[in-house]
Amino acid sequence: MNFENRNNNNNSRNDYDDDDDDDTTKSGKSLNIAVIGGGPVGSLCACYLANHGHKVFLYEGREDIRTTELSKGRSVNLAISARGRAALKKIGLEREIIYEHGLPMIGRMIHDKNGTKNIIPYDEVGKQCIYSSSRKYVNELLLTAAEREFNVMTSFKTKLISLDSKKGIMKFTRTDTNEFFETTADVIIGADGAYSTVRKEFLKHPMFNYSQEYIEHGYVELSIPPDIHGQFLMEPNYLHIWPRDTFMMIALPNRDKSWTVTLFMPLKNFQELKKPETLLKFFQINFPDALNYMTEDGLIRDYFSTVPSHLVSIKCNPYHLKNKLLLIGDAAHAMVPFFGQGMNAGFEDCVLLENLVTKYKSDFNFIMPEFSKTRCRDAEAICDLAMYNYIEMRFLVNKKTFRLRKKLDNVLYKIFQNKWLPLYNSVTFTDMNYSKCIENRKFQDKNSKDFS
Amino acid sequence: MNFENRNNNNNSRNDYDDDDDDDTTKSGKSLNIAVIGGGPVGSLCACYLANHGHKVFLYEGREDIRTTELSKGRSVNLAISARGRAALKKIGLEREIIYEHGLPMIGRMIHDKNGTKNIIPYDEVGKQCIYSSSRKYVNELLLTAAEREFNVMTSFKTKLISLDSKKGIMKFTRTDTNEFFETTADVIIGADGAYSTVRKEFLKHPMFNYSQEYIEHGYVELSIPPDIHGQFLMEPNYLHIWPRDTFMMIALPNRDKSWTVTLFMPLKNFQELKKPETLLKFFQINFPDALNYMTEDGLIRDYFSTVPSHLVSIKCNPYHLKNKLLLIGDAAHAMVPFFGQGMNAGFEDCVLLENLVTKYKSDFNFIMPEFSKTRCRDAEAICDLAMYNYIEMRFLVNKKTFRLRKKLDNVLYKIFQNKWLPLYNSVTFTDMNYSKCIENRKFQDKNSKDFS
Repeated sequence: MNFENRNNNNNSRNDYDDDDDDDTTKSGKSLNIAVIGGGPVGSLCACYLANHGHKVFLYEGREDIRTTELSKGRSVNLAISARGRAALKKIGLEREIIYEHGLPMIGRMIHDKNGTKNIIPYDEVGKQCIYSSSRKYVNELLLTAAEREFNVMTSFKTKLISLDSKKGIMKFTRTDTNEFFETTADVIIGADGAYSTVRKEFLKHPMFNYSQEYIEHGYVELSIPPDIHGQFLMEPNYLHIWPRDTFMMIALPNRDKSWTVTLFMPLKNFQELKKPETLLKFFQINFPDALNYMTEDGLIRDYFSTVPSHLVSIKCNPYHLKNKLLLIGDAAHAMVPFFGQGMNAGFEDCVLLENLVTKYKSDFNFIMPEFSKTRCRDAEAICDLAMYNYIEMRFLVNKKTFRLRKKLDNVLYKIFQNKWLPLYNSVTFTDMNYSKCIENRKFQDKNSKDFS
Repeated sequence: MNFENRNNNNNSRNDYDDDDDDDTTKSGKSLNIAVIGGGPVGSLCACYLANHGHKVFLYEGREDIRTTELSKGRSVNLAISARGRAALKKIGLEREIIYEHGLPMIGRMIHDKNGTKNIIPYDEVGKQCIYSSSRKYVNELLLTAAEREFNVMTSFKTKLISLDSKKGIMKFTRTDTNEFFETTADVIIGADGAYSTVRKEFLKHPMFNYSQEYIEHGYVELSIPPDIHGQFLMEPNYLHIWPRDTFMMIALPNRDKSWTVTLFMPLKNFQELKKPETLLKFFQINFPDALNYMTEDGLIRDYFSTVPSHLVSIKCNPYHLKNKLLLIGDAAHAMVPFFGQGMNAGFEDCVLLENLVTKYKSDFNFIMPEFSKTRCRDAEAICDLAMYNYIEMRFLVNKKTFRLRKKLDNVLYKIFQNKWLPLYNSVTFTDMNYSKCIENRKFQDKNSKDFS
């Protein structure tokens, strides 16, 4: 693969020189950049950086997702919204991933215990929707684009063991042969998820603020199959929710007309559902309509084939270490999944990084601190919002006042358009800074008292 | 050293049996307990546990503090208050450490820029005081007591590298010979400070909540010598404070009639004081009286002999991992030093642990979860209070309303005694749960509005 042929549009004069003697990350050079983690965020980031003329190496500890079966029990759906779409559009993949593959969801469908359903649309106009997509499909497309369109060098089953931030030395092990090797890079991007190995290096340095908070809820993935005619068993254009106060279930549609169902519940309650008959009774009482779709055998098969997964919220600050390391995606800000923004926020990280690469002509002495400065606050905001929605989704959607508020929000939005953007809509359907979304909501809370 | 001779008062029946097949931590046995960290908290904890008839091994990465010079720039004073005293009393060391060695401080002495001083007593009655003590002296006495009185086996220059929580295997390196060795223990107590190696093992396990927050302030230690007659240059029975809004300085008395002075300031401001003349000018403007005592040469010598230290606040939950590992002291809850409770809280951990060892007859299957359950909340409270005092000490003590509030508090305390305990007093002069201290204060804030 000949990197020299790639478009290198940053050979201009270095406007941002300073007295740092390490000039490998200055503008006007093709840098060696290592991206650790080949999930959707790492793959997308690799595409962006390679497109700036850098030599990008992507290292992934697991095997190539394109050659593996779907891994059981790990989140299989994504809800892609405006931020994710904008990021995909930049490399020409919005059409393929969103319009050809994604399934639009125009609102929430709330199921009560009697099987009665209520729709809460995302907006009154009915124009706005989010797209249910397969995580595996999105990841595969991005990996293939990285390799074929952007000449990214990929290496799977290559697990980062440790790194030296000063020298940019990374130690890897090949998980198939157990061989070790060392390599270096000018810049190392940690896109290696909530349990990031790159982040461990940050923890060794002073002035790195960090928090990880597990919630008491875990989750298991279940499924609803297509009907006997191969059609959807429920209304496909909705995100289905069964809120039950201390626990809840949601379902997202798949292209094969099946549903991926996720049960969120305190881990201690999962412990109580150890026998098939207890499980069935629990579903008969709480989710009778869903049980009907799943079938008893299907539920038992899905439920007992995995163990509940944990949910963690991670915040840190800064995201960079010197001009060498940068954290993006879940490695920087893992969040609980209740706002459907995890991957969207990770994709937005890539967009912001790409903007800074352009602005500072690939001089990472400037890119790094500005990325932290502009991004930490917003990422913290969406982590907080996701935690807030954790309460809202399983609890508030049952309350009459909350439903009224949602209706009022939507009516006001219809009348005032951009002047009145409900919180969910500003997060999901705009690229407004996440922290600004919260400020707006506070303003609305203050003013909407006049309506109540 | 013959451990069999030690008083073993826990050979009674095991009342707390459960179905765990690992019975090494059940009651009625002399356990092998490893304490990691030979600071004041680790040494005290070792004494307590050995006193219950267990074989206690104390491992410290640094050399024996009894054979070393005072390490420059690390906190040399402690302010011991009620909780610390109660803990020392349990092993008969209160007299030696507090009454014979400690210097009582009965209030705060506030210095303004003109050199004018104001006293804020800890109580109107004048009975309450805290004791300025040398950290090195306290540590030395506790280490010697651990070895001589309680037959604790100590090993210095023995640094923990890693541990396996499941098997209780610890890997150490000898810092003098670079030799490695492995050993095991039934129970491992992590008393290895804010940058705990034991805690790293916790971070590998799910459901461990953790946060580390650096504040923008750092500190350097300076000094005021005795006068030419070998006497104190300032009133010795006070904690002296120079509050200056965004920064502040404090001084604690030493037995040799000198003062240990600590300057707390945003790290970026330390960067600006790089030259002797800039430093002197800064002191002439902000601390003219202190500069007079320090002398210009003394200030320059002290200031430029170290680099500013960072300040971090650490919270986590739980403090135990299975029935094997337990975190205490700074390893569990490092706090900023502005309430003078860091070591007092660590000593109180030991008292609580000792109470549980007695209650559950050394069955760590019960001790571990209950320690976490009862201690995490209170330790988090004192971390928060210390952070609050960080603002109070450098800012609020300058405000007239704050001084009025303090006076009012003290008058009300004098009249109502136990019914009206100011926050500082309940934290410093009682053994009330830290979280209860905060609740009380909220109640008082609500009611004191009637007085203002």
